[in-house]
Amino acid sequence: MALIVQKYGGSSVADAEKIKNVARRIAQAKDKGDQVVVVVSAMGDTTDKLIELAGQVSNQPSDRELDLLLSTGEIVACTLLAMALKALGYEAISLSGAQAGIRTDAVYSRARIQKVDPERVISELDKGNIVIVAGFQGITDEMDITTLGRGGSDTTAVALAASLGAEACQIYTDVEGVYTADPHLASEAQRLPEIGYDEMLELATYGAKVVHPRAVELGELFNIPILVASSFTNNPGTLIHGGASMEVRNKVRGVAYDLDVAKITVVGVPDRPGIAASIFEPLAKANISIDTIVQNASINNITDLSFTVAKSQLDRAMEVVKPIARSIGARECVSDARLGKVSIIGTGMQNTPGFAAKMFGTLSERGINIQLITTSEIRITCIIDEARVKDAVHALHRAFELEIEE
Amino acid sequence: MALIVQKYGGSSVADAEKIKNVARRIAQAKDKGDQVVVVVSAMGDTTDKLIELAGQVSNQPSDRELDLLLSTGEIVACTLLAMALKALGYEAISLSGAQAGIRTDAVYSRARIQKVDPERVISELDKGNIVIVAGFQGITDEMDITTLGRGGSDTTAVALAASLGAEACQIYTDVEGVYTADPHLASEAQRLPEIGYDEMLELATYGAKVVHPRAVELGELFNIPILVASSFTNNPGTLIHGGASMEVRNKVRGVAYDLDVAKITVVGVPDRPGIAASIFEPLAKANISIDTIVQNASINNITDLSFTVAKSQLDRAMEVVKPIARSIGARECVSDARLGKVSIIGTGMQNTPGFAAKMFGTLSERGINIQLITTSEIRITCIIDEARVKDAVHALHRAFELEIEE
Repeated sequence: MALIVQKYGGSSVADAEKIKNVARRIAQAKDKGDQVVVVVSAMGDTTDKLIELAGQVSNQPSDRELDLLLSTGEIVACTLLAMALKALGYEAISLSGAQAGIRTDAVYSRARIQKVDPERVISELDKGNIVIVAGFQGITDEMDITTLGRGGSDTTAVALAASLGAEACQIYTDVEGVYTADPHLASEAQRLPEIGYDEMLELATYGAKVVHPRAVELGELFNIPILVASSFTNNPGTLIHGGASMEVRNKVRGVAYDLDVAKITVVGVPDRPGIAASIFEPLAKANISIDTIVQNASINNITDLSFTVAKSQLDRAMEVVKPIARSIGARECVSDARLGKVSIIGTGMQNTPGFAAKMFGTLSERGINIQLITTSEIRITCIIDEARVKDAVHALHRAFELEIEE
Repeated sequence: MALIVQKYGGSSVADAEKIKNVARRIAQAKDKGDQVVVVVSAMGDTTDKLIELAGQVSNQPSDRELDLLLSTGEIVACTLLAMALKALGYEAISLSGAQAGIRTDAVYSRARIQKVDPERVISELDKGNIVIVAGFQGITDEMDITTLGRGGSDTTAVALAASLGAEACQIYTDVEGVYTADPHLASEAQRLPEIGYDEMLELATYGAKVVHPRAVELGELFNIPILVASSFTNNPGTLIHGGASMEVRNKVRGVAYDLDVAKITVVGVPDRPGIAASIFEPLAKANISIDTIVQNASINNITDLSFTVAKSQLDRAMEVVKPIARSIGARECVSDARLGKVSIIGTGMQNTPGFAAKMFGTLSERGINIQLITTSEIRITCIIDEARVKDAVHALHRAFELEIEE
């Protein structure tokens, strides 16, 4: 008898019919003889509606109150799912995050799980129950309710799987798995039967929105295999794991993109110690997230410093940077809001020089100009004109033969 | 500095504007320098909507799951109210029933409060917070969420007032207070400035639906004065208390009625020990609530036994009673579903014979036939034709001079 943790997202439980459908899927898993723990998100757009309600009574709702408010959405979904399972004749019980022992820090709206006390879940499993846990939420040492922020329910599922020693964590969503590229953008994209944690992290961070990076990190840390599959079909999905086979494979696994990219370049910066800090510390204080940072080679002790931010933060970032640029004696400060990012991802790329050359060549052939380049061990990213992102994804997908099924 | 507990019902917080209005009222109380604890019900018809959702996934939702589901309604209302107070510049914090230390037994859907651990509420008050508590809910020793059933939020408010040693418990609702009769039925009804606990209990149980009897009982037990007033006006309301002045007063305080009355009479019952038990034990097992029971004087060891049930339970009750009637040798078993109940209530009535005579005389003058009569120390109730109930209320109101303001 194995123990599996399943997670169903908000679109999978958007109404009573969908909840009953999910209940039938869970029942099938139970029928196989496994112990089943299910993590569930709030129904459909419940969270947005609750935030809207909060906005009607307060311009700036406190994070603590908002977290307690939002936590109700997942509780509604998990009680209904438990009822639907009982109506099918299965023993089931719903637990809030607090009841399931999800202990977090007190950073409201983006709390981190500190530990899981799984005693209650284990005792309910031992009674023969399917245990339905409200995702996205936890409780502090002071008994206050927190939410985990974006990707919270995915994180709840993997954390529970880790603390229960589950055989697998299955994340059911409204897509068929992880693809070689965004299928909405590139219809030739192929589902990946399996992918490594690190590769998935780069894919998720750089544009793919299937499983939240926090959950993947946690899966890697505790070596929990994560299956991502559709809650509406019976297709096999994608298994995210740390199997050894991936270490020796040198292959691009996917193409990711991001259209929310704006670039600021501080031109003609005197190249002396402390210059970068003098620019980025004030930006951090203004709560502006910096993505890529590139500093060109210095010529005559003068350099250019470029970095990217989300488009919505460009104006605010420029307000912060302009006076600093003047004060440090930079020549000028320019920005470009119409950029995008395209990345190729795959383990072992860095040790195989051909990948970068092929990527740049492919873009060059299509007449796509590369504005910035950054790399990690398993990723090469180019910042390009946003109007050419779709074209670049198609070209790279073809160049690296991703349309060929594995 | 006094401590007061206020309670606002669902109609008082039905939407964002009403929540902001309630926040302003609470702010006024805080401005007087008092410490304020507020108990709040779910917004408008939230509870009904959640029950409807449950009905869509299960024909028979389990009480435990339903309680956890319904508990979210009050949490939504109390977080929004806390946000609205903070938006007005007041320090406020919302607490679920569990966080507020409302400990109950594990009888889901109608749990009883076993104790209140007020430490968290006290510590938040000491920090200068207005404390908003989700009504209607509590937590068991096993950390499961319960609801308190009908009148639950009123009960939460009085229990908190008792455990905190509050100076008063103020229940704000959509009516102006307790009336000499239902103002919807009798426009001549007068608001009572004050009323005793016992009188209020009889009024509440026998038709007036202003404060739940459980809350009044608890108020009496801990001697907490309960003010009932409108959340929409600044009128003074009705103070329910145990003041000595009421003990010496011999006056009818109000007329109550109930239209949900059906009568079953088992005719020609052999009058021997155990007969009553043989009828009422099976009814109790079938979960049918019996209200009034009247057994006539026995003639030749044959008697008639009448009792009343809610109209919705009449058919089921007849199914249970008919075979029993046959088996004990009763002549027949008849029912009447078109009945109503009218009561006069007032302390000291039993020691003043004139009241009963005046009640029966008044009904007789109007040609209203009395089918059953029952009395308590402070109440006389007549079961009559449902079509004559309104007429009876008016006549009794006039006969006992209730239209004259005190």
